[in-house]
Amino acid sequence: MEPLDLRFLEETFPFWKGLTLREQQKLLSQTRCYVYPKGSRIHSGLERCTGVLAVKRGQLRAYLMSDEGKEITLYRLLDGDVCFLSASCILKNISFDIYVDTEEETELYLIQASAYDALGKSNLAVQTFLQETISARFSDVMWVVEQIVFMKFDRRLAIFLLEQAALEGNDAVTLTHEQIAHHMGSAREVVSRMLKYFQNEGLVEVSRKGIRLLDRKALNALARE
Amino acid sequence: MEPLDLRFLEETFPFWKGLTLREQQKLLSQTRCYVYPKGSRIHSGLERCTGVLAVKRGQLRAYLMSDEGKEITLYRLLDGDVCFLSASCILKNISFDIYVDTEEETELYLIQASAYDALGKSNLAVQTFLQETISARFSDVMWVVEQIVFMKFDRRLAIFLLEQAALEGNDAVTLTHEQIAHHMGSAREVVSRMLKYFQNEGLVEVSRKGIRLLDRKALNALARE
Repeated sequence: MEPLDLRFLEETFPFWKGLTLREQQKLLSQTRCYVYPKGSRIHSGLERCTGVLAVKRGQLRAYLMSDEGKEITLYRLLDGDVCFLSASCILKNISFDIYVDTEEETELYLIQASAYDALGKSNLAVQTFLQETISARFSDVMWVVEQIVFMKFDRRLAIFLLEQAALEGNDAVTLTHEQIAHHMGSAREVVSRMLKYFQNEGLVEVSRKGIRLLDRKALNALARE
Repeated sequence: MEPLDLRFLEETFPFWKGLTLREQQKLLSQTRCYVYPKGSRIHSGLERCTGVLAVKRGQLRAYLMSDEGKEITLYRLLDGDVCFLSASCILKNISFDIYVDTEEETELYLIQASAYDALGKSNLAVQTFLQETISARFSDVMWVVEQIVFMKFDRRLAIFLLEQAALEGNDAVTLTHEQIAHHMGSAREVVSRMLKYFQNEGLVEVSRKGIRLLDRKALNALARE
């Protein structure tokens, strides 16, 4: 467990400064900071009360997983992002279960769900932040829905590769075809087939190390189609 | 415009009785009741401030529509349901646009978005109801995502026919194949092909009037697969 960084909490939770000293201390006493290595499962659909999760540094992936092991990424959590769906026990009308894994070494704060809930029942700003954060994740998921329902697979793959390269900070996507399929809610063969087509068209280079973006202009055009 | 039914407002908005008389009067002065015939467009993605919508009686369909006219139903609104996505101008982090149409003659209350917003900025119960209602719609949409990503089309169609027959209150689904495709985010040909298969298997009878469910047991088994 790591020491708590008060400034991070102030910056991440807009209501923090409006709390009384006693409320701050109570919340602090129920907050823990952990560092997880890449590839750790932080929250699974089976638990409902992992806690309110705030990312100090790192990268997390929130996703759905079916009984057969099919997956689809709903959103990523980056520095400063907060997730309440890992504390769905305090959310009356959230009836679905998500998984959250680290994609990089991640330092995160976990606030006990019951502590946040108690505060949200008496403090308007705390409740408002909850509503606004849930709305933000709702918007993330709607973007996923729009892509799945309205876009052809080539366009979706172009969007995914560009977003992923932006996350990785260069022109490379170091994921297997299987991992890409899990992000996109698709099957490995479908991803491999489209990547091969992209390669033939000169958009990307596919190798054992991953995928290198060769023609960003064409990928961008495809993504905006 | 119809006279306002105070009891409906009390039952629909759990915070109503906790408001001061002055707050109630202010909200009432910004609330209107309308009766819309079947097939009316209540809210379109182009507007962002139609208002907070409460259904007194009837049936509405909230859906996404692409530039090419492809559609997918996100959820239905029935008696007593409230929708805030038709007032997304007051929702900081809602960045998507939905359409809302009546599917039956519908009596609905529209509260001016700014009036609800003003109250939500000072009243915890008003803000909490907003959060809980958005969470409920988020759960509705996640059920759609799970179906699209994880389920085969035959299972999805069985689920849709059973839900739709329950809404219509009998064993008939009086929708065209095109309308079913719009609900499911699919194409007419795909729906027609699967319905033909269902008919050959003795699950349904397809005629000009619509679809009649013949073997609920088999449809239920398919839906639960």
